[in-house]
Amino acid sequence: MPGNTFGQLFRVTTAGESHGPANVCIVDGCPAGLPLSVDDLVPDLDRRRPGQSKLVTQRQEPDAPQILSGVFEGQTTGTSIAILIPNADQRSRDYADIKDKYRPGHADYTFDAKYGLRDYRGGGRSSARETNVRVAAGAIAKKLLKQTHDINIVGYVKQVGDILADIPQPEQVTLEQVEANPVRCPDPIAAQRMITQIQQVQKEQDSIGGISELVAVGVPAGWGEPVFDKLKADLGKALFSLPAVMGVEYGIGFGCATLRGSENNDLFIPPQASSPAALATATNRHGGMLGGISSGMPLVLRCAIKPTSSLSQPQDTVTRTGEPTTIATKGRHDPCLLPRFVPMGEAMLALVLADHMLRQRACQRR
Amino acid sequence: MPGNTFGQLFRVTTAGESHGPANVCIVDGCPAGLPLSVDDLVPDLDRRRPGQSKLVTQRQEPDAPQILSGVFEGQTTGTSIAILIPNADQRSRDYADIKDKYRPGHADYTFDAKYGLRDYRGGGRSSARETNVRVAAGAIAKKLLKQTHDINIVGYVKQVGDILADIPQPEQVTLEQVEANPVRCPDPIAAQRMITQIQQVQKEQDSIGGISELVAVGVPAGWGEPVFDKLKADLGKALFSLPAVMGVEYGIGFGCATLRGSENNDLFIPPQASSPAALATATNRHGGMLGGISSGMPLVLRCAIKPTSSLSQPQDTVTRTGEPTTIATKGRHDPCLLPRFVPMGEAMLALVLADHMLRQRACQRR
Amino acid sequence: MPGNTFGQLFRVTTAGESHGPANVCIVDGCPAGLPLSVDDLVPDLDRRRPGQSKLVTQRQEPDAPQILSGVFEGQTTGTSIAILIPNADQRSRDYADIKDKYRPGHADYTFDAKYGLRDYRGGGRSSARETNVRVAAGAIAKKLLKQTHDINIVGYVKQVGDILADIPQPEQVTLEQVEANPVRCPDPIAAQRMITQIQQVQKEQDSIGGISELVAVGVPAGWGEPVFDKLKADLGKALFSLPAVMGVEYGIGFGCATLRGSENNDLFIPPQASSPAALATATNRHGGMLGGISSGMPLVLRCAIKPTSSLSQPQDTVTRTGEPTTIATKGRHDPCLLPRFVPMGEAMLALVLADHMLRQRACQRR
Amino acid sequence: MPGNTFGQLFRVTTAGESHGPANVCIVDGCPAGLPLSVDDLVPDLDRRRPGQSKLVTQRQEPDAPQILSGVFEGQTTGTSIAILIPNADQRSRDYADIKDKYRPGHADYTFDAKYGLRDYRGGGRSSARETNVRVAAGAIAKKLLKQTHDINIVGYVKQVGDILADIPQPEQVTLEQVEANPVRCPDPIAAQRMITQIQQVQKEQDSIGGISELVAVGVPAGWGEPVFDKLKADLGKALFSLPAVMGVEYGIGFGCATLRGSENNDLFIPPQASSPAALATATNRHGGMLGGISSGMPLVLRCAIKPTSSLSQPQDTVTRTGEPTTIATKGRHDPCLLPRFVPMGEAMLALVLADHMLRQRACQRR
Repeated sequence: MPGNTFGQLFRVTTAGESHGPANVCIVDGCPAGLPLSVDDLVPDLDRRRPGQSKLVTQRQEPDAPQILSGVFEGQTTGTSIAILIPNADQRSRDYADIKDKYRPGHADYTFDAKYGLRDYRGGGRSSARETNVRVAAGAIAKKLLKQTHDINIVGYVKQVGDILADIPQPEQVTLEQVEANPVRCPDPIAAQRMITQIQQVQKEQDSIGGISELVAVGVPAGWGEPVFDKLKADLGKALFSLPAVMGVEYGIGFGCATLRGSENNDLFIPPQASSPAALATATNRHGGMLGGISSGMPLVLRCAIKPTSSLSQPQDTVTRTGEPTTIATKGRHDPCLLPRFVPMGEAMLALVLADHMLRQRACQRR
Repeated sequence: MPGNTFGQLFRVTTAGESHGPANVCIVDGCPAGLPLSVDDLVPDLDRRRPGQSKLVTQRQEPDAPQILSGVFEGQTTGTSIAILIPNADQRSRDYADIKDKYRPGHADYTFDAKYGLRDYRGGGRSSARETNVRVAAGAIAKKLLKQTHDINIVGYVKQVGDILADIPQPEQVTLEQVEANPVRCPDPIAAQRMITQIQQVQKEQDSIGGISELVAVGVPAGWGEPVFDKLKADLGKALFSLPAVMGVEYGIGFGCATLRGSENNDLFIPPQASSPAALATATNRHGGMLGGISSGMPLVLRCAIKPTSSLSQPQDTVTRTGEPTTIATKGRHDPCLLPRFVPMGEAMLALVLADHMLRQRACQRR
Repeated sequence: MPGNTFGQLFRVTTAGESHGPANVCIVDGCPAGLPLSVDDLVPDLDRRRPGQSKLVTQRQEPDAPQILSGVFEGQTTGTSIAILIPNADQRSRDYADIKDKYRPGHADYTFDAKYGLRDYRGGGRSSARETNVRVAAGAIAKKLLKQTHDINIVGYVKQVGDILADIPQPEQVTLEQVEANPVRCPDPIAAQRMITQIQQVQKEQDSIGGISELVAVGVPAGWGEPVFDKLKADLGKALFSLPAVMGVEYGIGFGCATLRGSENNDLFIPPQASSPAALATATNRHGGMLGGISSGMPLVLRCAIKPTSSLSQPQDTVTRTGEPTTIATKGRHDPCLLPRFVPMGEAMLALVLADHMLRQRACQRR
Repeated sequence: MPGNTFGQLFRVTTAGESHGPANVCIVDGCPAGLPLSVDDLVPDLDRRRPGQSKLVTQRQEPDAPQILSGVFEGQTTGTSIAILIPNADQRSRDYADIKDKYRPGHADYTFDAKYGLRDYRGGGRSSARETNVRVAAGAIAKKLLKQTHDINIVGYVKQVGDILADIPQPEQVTLEQVEANPVRCPDPIAAQRMITQIQQVQKEQDSIGGISELVAVGVPAGWGEPVFDKLKADLGKALFSLPAVMGVEYGIGFGCATLRGSENNDLFIPPQASSPAALATATNRHGGMLGGISSGMPLVLRCAIKPTSSLSQPQDTVTRTGEPTTIATKGRHDPCLLPRFVPMGEAMLALVLADHMLRQRACQRR
């Protein structure tokens, strides 16, 4: 099965290269009757697009989406929704370097090994440009989740290099707090230090990694399948499918390795007056998932994002024929991927939740 | 789509509860002509089974597999392979506690929320007992990968609590080193400390978490799909689908957050005389995957495993009707999940690789 | 993707050969709370099994199913249901003939061409024996459809050779009428002629084909997907996946070729007092599906079944090495496949409907 | 799983309505290195498009395809191929009739029943306009099959009303013979009578049904999966997924009902000098498939196509609220669907074969 489709019931299929005419996605399975227009897609696309701030690549891509099908008289019809985002910034340029040299950290070599040829213009299909249609599809998923279950999804930057944000209550973070600064860190003091750090590495022709945290509040207990399609498993796949993600954890995450069971277990507490129907736990080290199924507590996940592989400083590498050489990436690229990762991570979280929402509709007892 | 099937072309479907008559899997897509018998399944099942050492649960489950189809005259026929493992240790017992009380850290509550009812005998479908047929299926995948590409898969315990093994060259670790001690840690000094640690927490009616590392050597460059079905994404899903996994990382993993690009990038080096055809990198912080596609370098992944949720010490919880109560798990359970996790992690790694091996067969240029 | 799984949300995976120890299926996606026991599976298995009458093969296969998982305290749990049916009649015999000669009309040659080897004992995986677990799975689907939507599914024999049953109102046919005679034809006069015909061809060491009609009453309007997964398309696949089916049609079927639109269109009629909510059509040439979606009218389909390929009279053929030879099938086989086809066809119809019922649950507007 | 995706390894996902801005498809899984341009898509699109002759609807749709991704320097890259076909003829018109009245034979009512709303402009997603991107995708599949296995696919009109073409050797029919007349019947005498017949029903404000035959020559033995994904089953689904198809058969088809086994079986014959490797059968009543797997003989299938449901003569029907009314379709529509069906049927046949070609690559013994 080819790998350009994601999801079972809320399903996204994508196509497009960084320097082709457009990126396209088809969103299949969105129920009928959801109010939808391009205005619903633009805000998240603007959060993802290049050129939005001094911290990110200065390529200019307006990322103006077109909805080609599946919406009639302002509502989804239940049929497949095609979204097209033209590539505006297809400047002609000299690709001789990237054509014949393998950029460290990129997929140039592995694409050649896989396919025997590749679209060498700026990464082709392996470019993060493909994520713009994921973000558009994720915006639909977010709207659906909001409408049906009042679910809120928010992501932010938790760490850049050694700078760690202090966010004691992830479930309280708001979109406004995140968007209050260009690095998308809701801790304003850490945010300022992160900005300085990113500008510093940029000056040094270098890049820096970090960690993003993603939160979903309002997911009811019972979503996710028991064995292979655990909610954590589908979320793990979704997040690892994004470029540059080197690690994923939820709840206490890797911190569980040094805990004892008596320290790690979240104890159930009697139903609160405010929500008599559902149980809660006193703590949320389980990140909202038990046995791979949502517990009703906030979902909390984190992704480790590697430093941008493209560097303007020269790096040793080899050519397609194996000759030693050096390469310095001339294109405009992000010194730190984190600020633009946030809407991508949110989108994948939303896609998984919309999918499992529909799956739960299908399987639940009547 | 229900969640009891894994893989696209090398595909496993499972069924079975901890206290039902048997666990069953159907392995579909294994090519014809692979020599196979139950003897190929037993070694890994023995590494997974309860009662194998003092460090693990003392339940006695022989886990004797039967192959019911798909093998003829000692070879796979290309048709679906059914494997059945009877549940031997179905001792009658009093489930009143677990029936009406929600065990902290377990799926009791989330199953009830999902299905409206559950098989409350020892976890039912949410029990890690379901992994025995995964391990059997993984043994077939391992054999196929060995036969077609001479791939070796080995997992081991990297960390228990604060005790960290020193394993500078993951790709050099052998099965013999791993099996040299009951904790499955190839660093013999750390292993001894881990054993002491596990015995200590057991005495204290507690449990402890840890980290397992998984390695595949010999995977050729070019496996994995570019966008959603990146090799790292399918591996992420596979490993998160195992019980108790709270985090997954590959290569440098979460360590990338504090690195600069110039520190993190693995530089390509000219082909070595010993393997003229394939490129290599001087270092392997990318854990054998670039752009989600295998690079030819060893695959290296790590999973964080939470401490066993079942404790013999009493814990606060609530009943199904929301009344406060306490529960102490009386059953026999592992004080540390790590030693038995190793074959499970290897099995999932093997299943993903076998799947992508077949996918690569289908898509590669001719 | 290997081919031993059927359905998206109500999903069946099967394994097993005619002369292996057992056939197995895993039914995944059945909602929790459906009362279920082996007693629900036995009636349809008895209708399918060999040896049930003089008209069918005299092999003795009790087809006694075991439910190994997914049912607890008499109800489905929502997790995967494993069913095992042991092969009782594995008599040792001489397979030299079938091993080296290709039986006309069978899959001996095509299996060899596909896999390079085959289980030559009585057809192996290509034997119709694999359908026993389909029938068991279909019995679960039937029960679910009955419980949730009061849907009734009935199949019968419409034609054997030149003998055509007179069944003016397919939606009125009852199971009792079908089971009133061993040929499963609800027109008793035609049934008697069919029986005579079948006995005659048997005497002549020959076999005979026919047509089976399948009906589902009570399917609400709105099931099926608009483009590729039209209800008629999934039904077409389901029925063609059964052995010996050479043609499938619904409603007027191939008869539409000679009609004009003015003759063929079924006109909508105002809602009847008895069912004010749903529209109906005055006629049902559309067989209950318009645009691939159920219309609320009875589903009516027909399958053409070829005469049994195994004949006791000698037929010309070739050996594996291409030498001319003759073969006469010595085993016990059905002189006419139709009577035993009926429960198989019903099962596939039920599986498709259960699948689309769950799919409609997921996609419908809220 | 939503229904706008077809195929497992060679996979097509579509979107678009009759009166939206465009139809779109994403073809995923095409191997790298296939030469491809829009010129490869145009010929079959021209055979499908409206306005091509006096026999078909006079709507003017140029159906000019754009390839948006997946092709670089004239070759496929192995990544997903997006194709967009703008809808040129979106004339504004009065949809009041079709908005509130259910057209007999169309999906108006069933869409409303399914989704609670529908795009009422000319059929929306249920319009046969969606098939233009299937034909474009099929053209890629045809080219791949031609390149890798020299497979030729040809379809034609076998019957219109009572007029039956005489085509004794389906495997000998050429594209040139088919395209020699506007009705696409390679029997020139029958073709002339069909043309007269179609013009006659058009004058009478009526329509007429017919049968199309589809042939694939060059398919090697061994394609198709043994149980659910038999080649005949996937072909059955593919063809039934096309609008207006009421029946599908292969080889002898429904004609098998009246045959005896001794008449129906195709006898294997020793390998011919001209093709020493593969077996053949003396006759081809099995239509090139045995046990659901290709036998190496030509694939021959037939589809029954109903007469166009849209009629300019008034027909009785009801409104959305159930009131009796009449409707006469004012739009331009085909008096007979058969001539334009041919490229659609060929496309679906090609898509299934390309898919199973890749599946066979994956599963075959090495």
